[in-house]
Amino acid sequence: MNQAGPRDGGETAGGKSLDELCIDTLRVLAIDAVQEANSGHPGLPMGAATMAYVLWTRFLKYNPRDPLWPDRDRFVLSAGHGSMLLYALLHLTGYDLPLGEIERFRRWGSRTPGHPERGHHTPGVELSTGPLGQGFANGVGLAIAESWLAARFNRPGHAIVDHHTYALVSDGDLMEGITHEAASLAGHLRLGKLIYLYDQNRVTLAGVTDLSFTEDVAGRFDAYGWHTRHVPDGDDVGEITRAIEEARAERDRPSLLLVRTRIGRGSPKKEGTFGAHGSPLGEDEVRATKRALGWPTTDRFYLPGEAVRHFREAVGRGAGARGRWDRLAEAYAAAHPEEWAEWRRIMGGELPEGWAGGLPSWKPEDKPVATRTAAGQALNALAARIPNILGGSADLNPSTSTALKDRGDYQPPGEAVGPGTPGAVGGAWGRSGRNLHFGVREHAMGAAVNGMAAHGGVIPYGATFLVFSDYMKPSIRLGALMGLHAVYVFTHDSIAVGEDGPTHEPVEQLVGLRAIPGLTVIRPADANEAAEAWAVAVERDGPIALALSRQNLPILDRADSREPGVRRGAYILAEAAGGRPEVILIGSGSEVFLCMKARERLAALGVAARVISMPSWELFDAQDAAYRDRVLPPAVRKRVAIEAGSPIGWERYAGSEGAVIGIDRFGASAPGEEVMERFGFTVGRVTAEALRLLGRRDEAAKEEAGGEETAVAPTGPREGHS
Amino acid sequence: MNQAGPRDGGETAGGKSLDELCIDTLRVLAIDAVQEANSGHPGLPMGAATMAYVLWTRFLKYNPRDPLWPDRDRFVLSAGHGSMLLYALLHLTGYDLPLGEIERFRRWGSRTPGHPERGHHTPGVELSTGPLGQGFANGVGLAIAESWLAARFNRPGHAIVDHHTYALVSDGDLMEGITHEAASLAGHLRLGKLIYLYDQNRVTLAGVTDLSFTEDVAGRFDAYGWHTRHVPDGDDVGEITRAIEEARAERDRPSLLLVRTRIGRGSPKKEGTFGAHGSPLGEDEVRATKRALGWPTTDRFYLPGEAVRHFREAVGRGAGARGRWDRLAEAYAAAHPEEWAEWRRIMGGELPEGWAGGLPSWKPEDKPVATRTAAGQALNALAARIPNILGGSADLNPSTSTALKDRGDYQPPGEAVGPGTPGAVGGAWGRSGRNLHFGVREHAMGAAVNGMAAHGGVIPYGATFLVFSDYMKPSIRLGALMGLHAVYVFTHDSIAVGEDGPTHEPVEQLVGLRAIPGLTVIRPADANEAAEAWAVAVERDGPIALALSRQNLPILDRADSREPGVRRGAYILAEAAGGRPEVILIGSGSEVFLCMKARERLAALGVAARVISMPSWELFDAQDAAYRDRVLPPAVRKRVAIEAGSPIGWERYAGSEGAVIGIDRFGASAPGEEVMERFGFTVGRVTAEALRLLGRRDEAAKEEAGGEETAVAPTGPREGHS
Repeated sequence: MNQAGPRDGGETAGGKSLDELCIDTLRVLAIDAVQEANSGHPGLPMGAATMAYVLWTRFLKYNPRDPLWPDRDRFVLSAGHGSMLLYALLHLTGYDLPLGEIERFRRWGSRTPGHPERGHHTPGVELSTGPLGQGFANGVGLAIAESWLAARFNRPGHAIVDHHTYALVSDGDLMEGITHEAASLAGHLRLGKLIYLYDQNRVTLAGVTDLSFTEDVAGRFDAYGWHTRHVPDGDDVGEITRAIEEARAERDRPSLLLVRTRIGRGSPKKEGTFGAHGSPLGEDEVRATKRALGWPTTDRFYLPGEAVRHFREAVGRGAGARGRWDRLAEAYAAAHPEEWAEWRRIMGGELPEGWAGGLPSWKPEDKPVATRTAAGQALNALAARIPNILGGSADLNPSTSTALKDRGDYQPPGEAVGPGTPGAVGGAWGRSGRNLHFGVREHAMGAAVNGMAAHGGVIPYGATFLVFSDYMKPSIRLGALMGLHAVYVFTHDSIAVGEDGPTHEPVEQLVGLRAIPGLTVIRPADANEAAEAWAVAVERDGPIALALSRQNLPILDRADSREPGVRRGAYILAEAAGGRPEVILIGSGSEVFLCMKARERLAALGVAARVISMPSWELFDAQDAAYRDRVLPPAVRKRVAIEAGSPIGWERYAGSEGAVIGIDRFGASAPGEEVMERFGFTVGRVTAEALRLLGRRDEAAKEEAGGEETAVAPTGPREGHS
Repeated sequence: MNQAGPRDGGETAGGKSLDELCIDTLRVLAIDAVQEANSGHPGLPMGAATMAYVLWTRFLKYNPRDPLWPDRDRFVLSAGHGSMLLYALLHLTGYDLPLGEIERFRRWGSRTPGHPERGHHTPGVELSTGPLGQGFANGVGLAIAESWLAARFNRPGHAIVDHHTYALVSDGDLMEGITHEAASLAGHLRLGKLIYLYDQNRVTLAGVTDLSFTEDVAGRFDAYGWHTRHVPDGDDVGEITRAIEEARAERDRPSLLLVRTRIGRGSPKKEGTFGAHGSPLGEDEVRATKRALGWPTTDRFYLPGEAVRHFREAVGRGAGARGRWDRLAEAYAAAHPEEWAEWRRIMGGELPEGWAGGLPSWKPEDKPVATRTAAGQALNALAARIPNILGGSADLNPSTSTALKDRGDYQPPGEAVGPGTPGAVGGAWGRSGRNLHFGVREHAMGAAVNGMAAHGGVIPYGATFLVFSDYMKPSIRLGALMGLHAVYVFTHDSIAVGEDGPTHEPVEQLVGLRAIPGLTVIRPADANEAAEAWAVAVERDGPIALALSRQNLPILDRADSREPGVRRGAYILAEAAGGRPEVILIGSGSEVFLCMKARERLAALGVAARVISMPSWELFDAQDAAYRDRVLPPAVRKRVAIEAGSPIGWERYAGSEGAVIGIDRFGASAPGEEVMERFGFTVGRVTAEALRLLGRRDEAAKEEAGGEETAVAPTGPREGHS
């Protein structure tokens, strides 16, 4: 903190109020950091400084010395490019973010990256933002989590869960489709403790909003059922204060405060221009701005002592709030010891004893089961023992099998509609319901699931068809970047989808998801693998994507596998006769069964084949070399890999002498079995490829012509399948 | 057409009006087809039959015998699962879609796939739909194209371009974020000839809209600046008629008609239930429905002759409309022969003579240029000679360099704002502008570009950052499925983005795009490759994605390359000394320069290395084996592939004895050069990998430690870069 003696107190401020001095401190710190980095976005920090100041000094409940205090208010900078505003607030209010880090804004290894990052970088950053709209939708998840935990744990006189969710959102955020989805959902859910401040400066990266964004935003949010409130002068501390007070009093609707600001406020030349959005002001304009604000122009990162002291009062306020909460928690613990123990367990991210005990299992002689169905049963078994698993689908419950039976529908209380509503899952209807109805809003679902995971205390999942994972790809990416414990469930995972045709048949989604760093993708081969996959998803502290079949799949005989398979990513499902494979067949999901049948056929032809089930590349790649070489011995180079998806990437496991059976074109509309067969996903094809590798081409041709067995068992008329 | 004698005329209809008979014909044909297929969605066809009937028999301008007549109205079934409604209309009105095809609904090879597909399958299908929201946004593109062509070509008394764009949209569509983006844009653009019929049945796949979708839709669309109109009784032919008439009279705003319907209308048991959404009614309920509607229950696909005749009047109407238009066109051709020749050329998809003549070129001694910048110059050069190239970015013009200088801003006429608006490109402000301001709406941009391409007459492009291609992935996929001539421009294509950090640094997007069947991805290595890439994009009749650098890249010396490189996907940029490479270095984009430098270094160490520039996997894979083997001789197994993106898939070109230099984790916030260097994208690294393959490990270690040169030239403070 830079406090030069003679410039202390009110004199440099030139007659400014303390509020104005503090607000300008935010502005100048931001523009100094951006200029020092010669990179960044000064405009929003300058324009939104006033509303941010009001929020952080008068309303936001937080403890700078304890950024993870569970009952803190949550603040999300949805307009992530305004990161310097957030860093300035964090530093000034007393978080462990020294000025030295501000000086290293946008430098390698600093704790002040260009856009805010959750986790290892910066205390006080709840979610990584930058891609517009994500933070807005994350906030809906944060608010859902708060309200669910409150319904679950609060008792009369003991409200240990009681905090608000705030976000700062921009014009750009509100143009993005994800924010429509989230706003409509939040309005329906009557998330009254959601309060968003809209930095309405009517300027974006490439110009003014007059170019393309001229809708009546307040009218739209009224239509969503939000409380809306204009603040025509974004410099008016009093008006902003009143607006936030009204929003807090509004308990039954989310709030949007439309605060008119000027981007780059304070810059003589650039204020109000889109040039202020994402470029440093430049040395001259920095000086001119400082002069206009009455700031010394000689030092960078000068902070008036009076302003720092005022911001730092947050430490005392936070300690006080934390102290009150501690006493509340003590009383709660005394009155409700079991609930308190449960609360501590889930907030600590621990799983209860015996959590995996009730998982279903299947025997090879059982009837075939779709992995989406088995996964649904496993999910329900886990949800019975792990009470804070909650989630839903994007209007696909009957198809994704992800409903938690009788565990209630998460809905606002006191609705005219209730548990009898068609499509309701059943059980309680209200804030304690564990089934979330996201509607046809995949992208907001993904971001809300991220928000719920970030909040803590819940293990969230969201489900849709694998082909529609595309609609939520940006959210999945962020979940992976943040390492959130979120589960993304994708069913209908191949061209076996059948009649719905190519727009519904995934091809490239599996490799697309696998290519996302930090995301673990699991495609179970049968019901037992599906149950294990859910166990992995629950215990692994990071994001997981499950790819599940629409069609029934036989239960595999795992008599040969010595160890649990899914956890290791790939395992020997069936060994070659004599333990010396001439060829290795590698499959994932619905194609593993084909490999097993091909192995039998090959055995009849005198070929010893090993079958590997490979449900997850990432989990396998993470095993030590000894294990990987045991499963895929480098010396055995004749390998056939098969997956009803893009072949890209399978070369790594098949090797350059191997064959890959995949699909690299779009699917077709016809019954699923027929589509699989016509695209070559048959026992005959696998057998043929193996024989070709062994130089037995004539036999290969015969196998390919004759064999027609696919892994798709008929499912009959599809109930509730779109 | 099934016309049994004694059941002709009004008797079977049991006193119904002709309208009712026709509407029920649509219903029954749909449920019969779905039942025959034992798969599909009967609910929407039954519920929306009335409004579809009114539109197609009283308003829609089309010629069943000439589905590609350019001045036809466009109709998009955004709720693509209602495909049987569309197929029924197409068959009955006289398109070349025989009843036999209806009977083969959802069967392999039929022309009636589960969701409508544009192109080779079904005449009269403008766009492939199914994934919700896409059709809604496609329509905005169709309307933009119509208005642009009208502004460009119509002359007083000669309106050869004058048609409307209609769509049938559902609750599910309106929940999707993409429709918000499209609706807000359409409202801003005052697309008055856009008329959407909203099948408001308040039921979705998984239940009723009360579960999650309770917003005031009309209020929201009012806020977008649309004309909204309720039709409380979706069976009321007269009211629907009036509503469409009013919408057509509304020339200054797009229209949304909220038509209250009942899903599964006509089914005694299932009407109004979500079970009617996506499952066949079942044989019993089909019979019960037919009985309720007064239909014979013995035959499937029975069509009352009277209804067929009435629908078939469309043929005569269409011929009449076409005839009038032909005369209009004749008069136009006589009065404006040059414009007519131009119109014919562009509607025929032809490029003008010498279209590639003005492309810029660069010499190796020129200063380094970012490929985004060079591409922008090439685009402008092409746009000068090809007058129907139009497009824009998602609020990133200053960063993507995709503005068409002085070619005008596409905006509604008569606005208070005009050419002086900050961010305007310049030139005319109005419907003839060629620069589209999509706003921060990547997904709607993608779908609108698809709509424009589908319309015909324009060559559209849309631009954003490569990392944000994720936001429009579903639209890109559909563009590829449809084989549309659309150009998706993605800049800021690697971790060289630098300071904006991991949320803005693509890693997995390149392989994700390459995995989409039918999409050609080109990542040029320097300015000359960038110009050639745009030429390929313009001449190739299919979707292209360009990946362009933010940072400056040196102009490569192509003295060794005997033929144009980009078109063939990969080519020998620099041959090994003596023509016998010991090692091959393969790079794309910004990494090719590193390979060139490494080649020099290796030469100094006595190693003969060949450098391949591989801007496009797809174009290379499409070359004949002789060419591919010439570029990558199978005998030369020591290969190093390098790209600043996911390594997945590069094994195919590097081979199992090769090395792949890529990045499989998220990036970091720091200056771009530093990020590239720290992640190993250096000359030293390439050299080291090559030496390692040659067994020269000690030298490899030295090279890796010493070399630091990256391909990133400093760019200085970023102007307008977010």
